[in-house]
Amino acid sequence: MKILVINTGSSSLKYQVLNMNDEELLCKGLVEKIGLPDSKIKQKCGNLKFEEEHYFENHEQALKRVIELVTDEKKGCLKSMSEIDAIGHRVVHGGEDFSKSVLITDEVMKALEDNINLAPLHNPANITGIKAAQKLLPEVPQIGVFDTAFHQTMPPKAFMYALPYELYKKYKIRRYGFHGTSHRYVAKRAAELLCLRKRDIKIISAHIGNGGSVAAIQNAKVVDTSMGFTPLEGLIMGTRSGDIDPAIPIYLMRNGYSMDEVDDILNKKSGVYGISDYLSSDMRDIRAAKDDGNEKAALALDVYVYRLAKYIGSYATAMKGLDVLIFTAGVGENTIEFREKVCEYLEIFGVELDKEKNKTLNGKEGIISTDSSKVKVLIIPTDEELMIARDTKKIVENM
Amino acid sequence: MKILVINTGSSSLKYQVLNMNDEELLCKGLVEKIGLPDSKIKQKCGNLKFEEEHYFENHEQALKRVIELVTDEKKGCLKSMSEIDAIGHRVVHGGEDFSKSVLITDEVMKALEDNINLAPLHNPANITGIKAAQKLLPEVPQIGVFDTAFHQTMPPKAFMYALPYELYKKYKIRRYGFHGTSHRYVAKRAAELLCLRKRDIKIISAHIGNGGSVAAIQNAKVVDTSMGFTPLEGLIMGTRSGDIDPAIPIYLMRNGYSMDEVDDILNKKSGVYGISDYLSSDMRDIRAAKDDGNEKAALALDVYVYRLAKYIGSYATAMKGLDVLIFTAGVGENTIEFREKVCEYLEIFGVELDKEKNKTLNGKEGIISTDSSKVKVLIIPTDEELMIARDTKKIVENM
Repeated sequence: MKILVINTGSSSLKYQVLNMNDEELLCKGLVEKIGLPDSKIKQKCGNLKFEEEHYFENHEQALKRVIELVTDEKKGCLKSMSEIDAIGHRVVHGGEDFSKSVLITDEVMKALEDNINLAPLHNPANITGIKAAQKLLPEVPQIGVFDTAFHQTMPPKAFMYALPYELYKKYKIRRYGFHGTSHRYVAKRAAELLCLRKRDIKIISAHIGNGGSVAAIQNAKVVDTSMGFTPLEGLIMGTRSGDIDPAIPIYLMRNGYSMDEVDDILNKKSGVYGISDYLSSDMRDIRAAKDDGNEKAALALDVYVYRLAKYIGSYATAMKGLDVLIFTAGVGENTIEFREKVCEYLEIFGVELDKEKNKTLNGKEGIISTDSSKVKVLIIPTDEELMIARDTKKIVENM
Repeated sequence: MKILVINTGSSSLKYQVLNMNDEELLCKGLVEKIGLPDSKIKQKCGNLKFEEEHYFENHEQALKRVIELVTDEKKGCLKSMSEIDAIGHRVVHGGEDFSKSVLITDEVMKALEDNINLAPLHNPANITGIKAAQKLLPEVPQIGVFDTAFHQTMPPKAFMYALPYELYKKYKIRRYGFHGTSHRYVAKRAAELLCLRKRDIKIISAHIGNGGSVAAIQNAKVVDTSMGFTPLEGLIMGTRSGDIDPAIPIYLMRNGYSMDEVDDILNKKSGVYGISDYLSSDMRDIRAAKDDGNEKAALALDVYVYRLAKYIGSYATAMKGLDVLIFTAGVGENTIEFREKVCEYLEIFGVELDKEKNKTLNGKEGIISTDSSKVKVLIIPTDEELMIARDTKKIVENM
């Protein structure tokens, strides 16, 4: 069974073709800057790389070219699109309607459109991607895999804000959590690696990339997570503030900032980028600057690590214990010093990092705690696309 | 040495007269609804209670009547105001200018006025109170004791938000923390009761009243606290939301709420009151409703306890250990079930609550953990006025 995985952003389209008989990645690619004059497409099939500049007016045109490229005799991996058995779409926000992946029907499309208000930046792009695929490949089953779905098991004490109850009823304001497909993938993988049944263990998974979130997973179910109503809450991220005093947005507006400016500040000018005085949102630049003696870069790193350590502590408290700690995504997988500094805070829970393993396994999958560590610490490179393909396969097989 | 302690709110004036030779409370009182037609004053000297309705146009008029009453031959405790050696004022926001209590000079008054922007609801009232006292008792030294001062020892990793650095420079946007006088009092008292030197211990103090905050205190210095730039951040309170996704205020405004309405919702219609669907902001009512089977009251309690437990866990992580946990203020001192439920989450740190002591010592000062508990848990009734009087005494003695 071959599956096409599609992840559409507002001006981008990422895709992978996987052979799900052995979970082999056949081909992957990215269309960038859709709608802009310098839009382009990159593709990699095995060792064969291909790149072209090409004006794509919209996602449909982009997907058309993707279909040509993956079936191209020389550049592609398929003879024809009829080899594709199903398409799996990443959808950011499923609201309270979706607690697992689903076959996309007219009813599902309606629910997605009803949820646009909850994710005005993301869901419209996802819907556009689904519609383009439905149009170009009308016979192929389409599956929706939601970033929020894995978190739907959270108990009310974790997902309810202390806001007027009517705001929950009227606007569905609550904690949803994101990166669910990634947290689910790494938690499952950790249980496999440790030969533990998922049900028996208390896992905290730290997905730290440009965006970042932590999830507390007990008996294979999410019990809490740091992103909230939107992906702004929680950890300090590349350009997002994470948690702040909720009076600050109002304070800024009273001091002359417009609502859109405040939105822009919190989402695009804050986080590591903001605290480092606009040095960079990239952890690699920040670490280099710190090594050069830049004090604001050092501060940004300190705050970044400290916030994550506190979240891990609060979730270990919430679960009344901790067995497994997972680092994943760009920064989590590839930053030796970062993991070391986070783990220094966690000895109280029985975390003993093996500093050598933390170095040699950097960027790879494996256990980086000592053999005697009460808490097993792991690096697990995330693979959301594989998880989407697995869900898609399972649903199609049961159709 | 006799000291008058004054705590002015926007329409209220609380006062105490203490004999600081033996820290005896001679007299205390409260003027309410200053500026409103039904303003009134209550006073208690020893067993003698007095109450009268009286129109007070402003704080100066109120203080004038206070002076008459405390020196009243029958109702008062002093022969004349000349017995008062100094006046201690509670001041809410000292910004970054004050890390300890100070003699109020012209320079200090200017700094207080510069900080009005940081506490527009509180500091103007405090300034009004100081000016009234200066006018009516010009010969008496006046001391300012700041709610924020004890927290000024926080390291940057705890007080910096991940916002653009320029917002810190330009608007002083950072974590300040409040309830500092209370946290300082109970931390000192706990060290005395446990016969420990403050420096050796890691304390978490939970001040849980209608407002609420937690402080992490290591080597007698605050290292983190839950209230932030304003007293809105952190724990769930009577009517305040505490932490929420910072995107929510903007979301509400985009859905038609005005800035003032959002401010009002977050500060006055949220917290326990909001989540219980406007049942009550008072924990006693919420507990009673829960016992009657009200599900939203049960939810409000759950969320309230859970948030506090997570904060305690995060601060134990921040300090890499925990020796002493203190409950104080209205709910903290007087709610058996609340303390029990919080402590249930904390066994991972070595907290063992003695359930019997937790009952019998309810509302009193004492240790409520078992003898074998690694972490000592205490109830300590707070006494901010005594702390203000002590600071005032110390400064006057060294003048």
